[in-house]
Amino acid sequence: MELDMFRDRCGLCGVYDHTEASRLVYLGLYALQHRGQESAGIVASDRKRLLRHLGMGLVADVFNRSILDRLKGKLAIGHVRYSTAGDTALRNAQPLLVNTAHGTLAVAHNGNLTNALTLRGELEKAGSIFQTSSDSEVLLHLIARSPASSLREKIVEALRQVHGAYSLLFLTKRELIAVRDPYGVRPLVIGKLGRAVVFASETCALDLLGARYVRDVQPGEIVLVNGGGLQSFMFQEVPKQAKCVFEYIYFARPDSAIFGGSVYAVRKALGRELAREAPAQADLVIAVPDSANVAAVGYAEESGIPYGLGLIRSHYIGRTFIEPRQAIRDFGAKIKYNAVRQELEGKRVVLVDDSIVRGTTSRKLIRMLRGAGVKEVHMRISSPPIVGPCYYGIDTPSKKELIASHKTVEEIQTYLGVESLRYLSLNGLLKATQMESQHFCTGCFTDNYPIPLTDIVNARLGFHG
Amino acid sequence: MELDMFRDRCGLCGVYDHTEASRLVYLGLYALQHRGQESAGIVASDRKRLLRHLGMGLVADVFNRSILDRLKGKLAIGHVRYSTAGDTALRNAQPLLVNTAHGTLAVAHNGNLTNALTLRGELEKAGSIFQTSSDSEVLLHLIARSPASSLREKIVEALRQVHGAYSLLFLTKRELIAVRDPYGVRPLVIGKLGRAVVFASETCALDLLGARYVRDVQPGEIVLVNGGGLQSFMFQEVPKQAKCVFEYIYFARPDSAIFGGSVYAVRKALGRELAREAPAQADLVIAVPDSANVAAVGYAEESGIPYGLGLIRSHYIGRTFIEPRQAIRDFGAKIKYNAVRQELEGKRVVLVDDSIVRGTTSRKLIRMLRGAGVKEVHMRISSPPIVGPCYYGIDTPSKKELIASHKTVEEIQTYLGVESLRYLSLNGLLKATQMESQHFCTGCFTDNYPIPLTDIVNARLGFHG
Amino acid sequence: MELDMFRDRCGLCGVYDHTEASRLVYLGLYALQHRGQESAGIVASDRKRLLRHLGMGLVADVFNRSILDRLKGKLAIGHVRYSTAGDTALRNAQPLLVNTAHGTLAVAHNGNLTNALTLRGELEKAGSIFQTSSDSEVLLHLIARSPASSLREKIVEALRQVHGAYSLLFLTKRELIAVRDPYGVRPLVIGKLGRAVVFASETCALDLLGARYVRDVQPGEIVLVNGGGLQSFMFQEVPKQAKCVFEYIYFARPDSAIFGGSVYAVRKALGRELAREAPAQADLVIAVPDSANVAAVGYAEESGIPYGLGLIRSHYIGRTFIEPRQAIRDFGAKIKYNAVRQELEGKRVVLVDDSIVRGTTSRKLIRMLRGAGVKEVHMRISSPPIVGPCYYGIDTPSKKELIASHKTVEEIQTYLGVESLRYLSLNGLLKATQMESQHFCTGCFTDNYPIPLTDIVNARLGFHG
Amino acid sequence: MELDMFRDRCGLCGVYDHTEASRLVYLGLYALQHRGQESAGIVASDRKRLLRHLGMGLVADVFNRSILDRLKGKLAIGHVRYSTAGDTALRNAQPLLVNTAHGTLAVAHNGNLTNALTLRGELEKAGSIFQTSSDSEVLLHLIARSPASSLREKIVEALRQVHGAYSLLFLTKRELIAVRDPYGVRPLVIGKLGRAVVFASETCALDLLGARYVRDVQPGEIVLVNGGGLQSFMFQEVPKQAKCVFEYIYFARPDSAIFGGSVYAVRKALGRELAREAPAQADLVIAVPDSANVAAVGYAEESGIPYGLGLIRSHYIGRTFIEPRQAIRDFGAKIKYNAVRQELEGKRVVLVDDSIVRGTTSRKLIRMLRGAGVKEVHMRISSPPIVGPCYYGIDTPSKKELIASHKTVEEIQTYLGVESLRYLSLNGLLKATQMESQHFCTGCFTDNYPIPLTDIVNARLGFHG
Repeated sequence: MELDMFRDRCGLCGVYDHTEASRLVYLGLYALQHRGQESAGIVASDRKRLLRHLGMGLVADVFNRSILDRLKGKLAIGHVRYSTAGDTALRNAQPLLVNTAHGTLAVAHNGNLTNALTLRGELEKAGSIFQTSSDSEVLLHLIARSPASSLREKIVEALRQVHGAYSLLFLTKRELIAVRDPYGVRPLVIGKLGRAVVFASETCALDLLGARYVRDVQPGEIVLVNGGGLQSFMFQEVPKQAKCVFEYIYFARPDSAIFGGSVYAVRKALGRELAREAPAQADLVIAVPDSANVAAVGYAEESGIPYGLGLIRSHYIGRTFIEPRQAIRDFGAKIKYNAVRQELEGKRVVLVDDSIVRGTTSRKLIRMLRGAGVKEVHMRISSPPIVGPCYYGIDTPSKKELIASHKTVEEIQTYLGVESLRYLSLNGLLKATQMESQHFCTGCFTDNYPIPLTDIVNARLGFHG
Repeated sequence: MELDMFRDRCGLCGVYDHTEASRLVYLGLYALQHRGQESAGIVASDRKRLLRHLGMGLVADVFNRSILDRLKGKLAIGHVRYSTAGDTALRNAQPLLVNTAHGTLAVAHNGNLTNALTLRGELEKAGSIFQTSSDSEVLLHLIARSPASSLREKIVEALRQVHGAYSLLFLTKRELIAVRDPYGVRPLVIGKLGRAVVFASETCALDLLGARYVRDVQPGEIVLVNGGGLQSFMFQEVPKQAKCVFEYIYFARPDSAIFGGSVYAVRKALGRELAREAPAQADLVIAVPDSANVAAVGYAEESGIPYGLGLIRSHYIGRTFIEPRQAIRDFGAKIKYNAVRQELEGKRVVLVDDSIVRGTTSRKLIRMLRGAGVKEVHMRISSPPIVGPCYYGIDTPSKKELIASHKTVEEIQTYLGVESLRYLSLNGLLKATQMESQHFCTGCFTDNYPIPLTDIVNARLGFHG
Repeated sequence: MELDMFRDRCGLCGVYDHTEASRLVYLGLYALQHRGQESAGIVASDRKRLLRHLGMGLVADVFNRSILDRLKGKLAIGHVRYSTAGDTALRNAQPLLVNTAHGTLAVAHNGNLTNALTLRGELEKAGSIFQTSSDSEVLLHLIARSPASSLREKIVEALRQVHGAYSLLFLTKRELIAVRDPYGVRPLVIGKLGRAVVFASETCALDLLGARYVRDVQPGEIVLVNGGGLQSFMFQEVPKQAKCVFEYIYFARPDSAIFGGSVYAVRKALGRELAREAPAQADLVIAVPDSANVAAVGYAEESGIPYGLGLIRSHYIGRTFIEPRQAIRDFGAKIKYNAVRQELEGKRVVLVDDSIVRGTTSRKLIRMLRGAGVKEVHMRISSPPIVGPCYYGIDTPSKKELIASHKTVEEIQTYLGVESLRYLSLNGLLKATQMESQHFCTGCFTDNYPIPLTDIVNARLGFHG
Repeated sequence: MELDMFRDRCGLCGVYDHTEASRLVYLGLYALQHRGQESAGIVASDRKRLLRHLGMGLVADVFNRSILDRLKGKLAIGHVRYSTAGDTALRNAQPLLVNTAHGTLAVAHNGNLTNALTLRGELEKAGSIFQTSSDSEVLLHLIARSPASSLREKIVEALRQVHGAYSLLFLTKRELIAVRDPYGVRPLVIGKLGRAVVFASETCALDLLGARYVRDVQPGEIVLVNGGGLQSFMFQEVPKQAKCVFEYIYFARPDSAIFGGSVYAVRKALGRELAREAPAQADLVIAVPDSANVAAVGYAEESGIPYGLGLIRSHYIGRTFIEPRQAIRDFGAKIKYNAVRQELEGKRVVLVDDSIVRGTTSRKLIRMLRGAGVKEVHMRISSPPIVGPCYYGIDTPSKKELIASHKTVEEIQTYLGVESLRYLSLNGLLKATQMESQHFCTGCFTDNYPIPLTDIVNARLGFHG
């Protein structure tokens, strides 16, 4: 069973009708680099053919001036991806690019299809061949096999067969198509830059391009942009959406707006709510930088306890790092963080983090704080305990590796060696979003997954090899 | 119309049942490097999965120790390819590797399918998607769509639908399958190294591995090697084969045996026959090195005129070479060859070459000889004039670029500026092969192509876009 | 006149008597990466010979496991450097490694010699040849030409001839020597890791290695470590030292202690002092991240105005970045920073930065804040106006490019387009260091340079070509 | 004692007064690639400064268009070098480039100084520092320390102190200087290309550039080219020159003329002389390709025995080659050569080679011939037995590794397993050169070295560390 390989987190950008389409997409991907650092790709159309460049590594390393110059044309889409190493990885880099009876077609996908393996088995039985291990390839086969006449209808027919989370950008020689799944799990926004239409996973990409935010692609909406302008169709509606609340908690950039709300504002509200729910007697509030910075500022403000920069993060970490053979204590945390004794010594500290996954790095960090003279550590997490993996496109370890899936909060507190550990409640979390909170997916906190996990169920039943 | 992209020349090697299968394939590809210098790839099976590594460049540069170490297992196939630059090229590098309902399947192909575009159009209409521009991908779709139950039968069913030239190696987790088209256009030999079975395009690969030549894969034969040993099936027979005579003239290595005959012996016989058909009053026989060396030695021996090394060839040429802006006269020939004045000055020279394609380099070479003081140049070609391109897997320019397609021998003689120009006759050529000469393809010399050119015909009829 | 090339900022690390000396130095350099990102080098001694590896780029990219394995031995020194591109740059990468009559000698240098050109002219006249454009090479020539008998005495004799700022690590086959100039301009600390002695520019390197801080190398001290243990000699004392106050303000990592004081503590005190000297009527304090974060927290605390994260910084910037041809407004700032509208809109903001150099980026940042709806910008700088370049080892533009060298604070305020601009006073700065403040160099704020600028003076007199 | 590192073989090219000087030098180096394949470098002058680019690898890989574009100016020199791997190697790549009181100076050196270590010891005692392990650096120090006033006189003074073999090209901002040692050990020729003056190790470089050969730089001559034209000075004359006869036998390209004679003509004469001195009863003459091809043709012609191409050489060998763990018999020879059974089977063969160094590869080759069915092998060497290493610039193993230094011809014959082995006599060798044969160095055949081996003698006396 290879379910693991179907999971990734990604960023998308597309531009229609701009003379420098591929350069703008390049910049957009750069702004979305936090959504995936291991491969990047762009497909551009000069209306005669689609040209593609893919590579392993950061956007700024994968592309250079001469490559971007070759990616000519006024429409382009791009993708950044988190994945694993080796040949397989480049094979799975996106956008995918294929020839079909309908012409050449490229696709970039953020999310995860939960019945991809099942569909793939059926397609293979019908004679399809698969050249990647990406779930997105399934979608292309379904489109190619659709008897519908227009590409839009083919796409809609294909989407009706898939389950899961997907924000998608398609490119043909003359058309750019954006789609968001009916549950709206992953974000996707529309912007305008002069005449040009821009799509991006988050608004921070629009900001860099100097584009104006127009609106979100709606859950269940398909947006076509071509010579006839922008057209919108709703292809499916569901009674209850399932936007990923973790995008707010950790994944999106704080300077972005997604799902119609400011990430910064939500994170600050999470910190404030956390301070109300789980106060602490302490001298200083510090964050695990940088992802918990905003929540920590919120906690400090609400609690009145001063905010400090007790942990300093290094930003030069390369892909591989060579550790001495004689192990250095807590090396895995040290290579990324250092504690500031002068700020911490003798103090009772509130340590704010956005989440605890395995708990191993947190434990090292806390030992580092003790080493810097901290008297008491009150750990505060700006989300509830993670008890299950994400099946909708965020890379998480398996259930048994999640510390909160098999330990109580008290046990975790003991494991981490802190004076107190408190998580934000689910109610507190949803309240902080200040939106129709019933429309969020909270599967990783509740084990209650709103979109069917077909492949998982089939795997349990022994349907996959 | 993209017919051009379907043409390439390649080399194949496969090993079954050897603990160092991928290293042996690597060495075999190294020995076959003359068949393709721009990409190389190996797929190996450890019986659990197929692992692949592909890269642009020479075998010795694409692979290193750690990559070969990762390509574990006792069975492997590999491919070297001549192709064009950029992302597209890596996309088309082989072996191809796909997942089908039958399991994972890799294929390496030497040759060219002449109805690939036509089949591809039909497959796309039936919902197939294509991720490369290689004709070999068509074959994989046909196999995947075959309703037959065993892989062998699926392959046979697929092969019955394709036209053209193909020597093929397939690899699954547990099986290696070798195929040669019914016309036997491209070579493919079987060798043994202890228990291990080795397949290669030419015997020079067996020599390097220390493997013993057993026999050729027969035209129309499919050879399976698996736990049950080696099994052979004839899947199709044709009344008249069409082995590529150009393999003997130019393409194969002189130390190889192909089609059951020694390349060296044939080339020497070509030279001897040429001396008989087209004698010359001269003081010295020289070759265009290195491809015409053997024929020149044959000419010298038969004619009694001394053999000399009047042209020296450089072997350090890189992929791109930067010429000064102020053009150097005959630079294109000079960068590769230099004339030895001391040997040439004042002499009447027989210049032996294996063929003339466009004639441009020959013309520069002859000017270079004049510059070194040669008194008379009698050019002798060890094959007939090339009047048509190869559609069966050798990279040749289009018909109109072939000088002999639109100029008489006298006109070419004038263009080249030689005292005399003579080609070997078709009869002389076939006689020199000393084999059932009616079974060779001589399409490039006669415009008479033995295997249907379906795509070409359809393109002329306007069937392709 | 090539004075510009003599200026760089650097980081040093050395280890004596540890079986993994080169790996520890590698980690130390990684922790000091902020002091120089463009080249890195390590020299190790296995007591038989010195082996070196240099490369352009980040520490994590320049070294890999097999390179570190080749750098055998129990003593090693390393260097990171800020410099310019091309062959010249690798030529100037350090540690330098030379053979002298005394044996092989390596040196790593942080700082800048102010009479290097003058000395070099004299040495060239005496027959010395120079292979780099580094001032450090001058030092090696002086050492090699010294008639003294021991290496320590040769070094001391050489140092007596040079002016300027230098922290130095020397390595021979059996000895590690650390030196700090009599003015103590650049930091250099001593640590212990078990038996091993560690030297580093800042304590953050000791923290990563798990080494214990022992003390600073003293201004005017030379420390030898060899088989006989650690020996200390004072080679020169000056009445008034000149530690670089800018190390505290901007250059060193906040988690380091240098010159015996915590960088974090000084920066926070700078922010507090700034709040007292230059209060503002505002709703929010934000920093230009990350260098001004600590000062901004100090300002917020002292002023009682809430601290927020109104500017988000991207950490993925590569070495070259490709801008679209149609310029994006304020691109230079946008590629690094983005404003958080949700936090900023409608607010009066105190924007804290550590310094203003040319003013161009600040201006773009401020426009970005306006674009995000900020009502008033009160810019506060945690150091005085920079009116002169640094001649002692920090890379700064020439005087005329420094905005404060030719504009008043009011003019800068107008140029930046802010409601108010206030700098910290020199008194406030020195007070915040809480140390013998008369011992700091404040040349860049006062144009009053404590160490003779021999080359500059000679250049003005026309002595250099 | 590190004498080994002072030995290398190299190629030189220089161009004066051509707008594309660096591109022409690049082409010249390409033509001289056989003289050194491991590093390449060019220094060009635009009259304002000297710019350099060096790299490891082949000329075509080290340089590209943009690098050559940066190497502006109308005068340039270049160097190709044979050397060892790693950082040290790049450090030793040439041209060397230094600053002296006289200005910036570059030098490219072919040959070897035999008192470099001794002089280096003295220079180090006088305070010089050495940054490479190249003997050429010694020369630069001597020049820099010379009290003479002009660069030419400084060079002459320096040369009077060195012993050994040297062809040299110097470059300053405005001047190109060529030198050849008084013994004339290494070749160096002068050509003209329009107005431009070209220097090169061999005439094959002139041929590629389309330059006309003018004359050799004379032994003991220094040639200056500057604004005032070309000036010549004899700086030293010796009664008996010592041109390297091995340049004729093996090292130079056969299409070159060196020392005023054609390499091709000499090699053919060697083969003829060998046939007269050492006839054989045989059916076929074959060469060890490619270096012995010309001698084999000469042998065949003189003996009347047919010439054949029994050994085929591969030209794709990369720098590292991965052998299977289960050793392949005679792999070291097989990876480079293959035998042609069809030509060899059942025959008595004369195998011509230019020399035998260690004998290990020859032995493998002969086993390969036996494997291809050769009945008798009569090995004929076109030079006398090599009994001593070269100290004048050709890379040879130490005396004890030379098979002929400790085995008789009969013993070698037995070791190789041939029916007969015969070497050309020294007289025969000198006769074949058809020049004033008393002026050749034959040290490697006679152990009689014409130029003092100062470093060797001092090393034996224990003067070096």
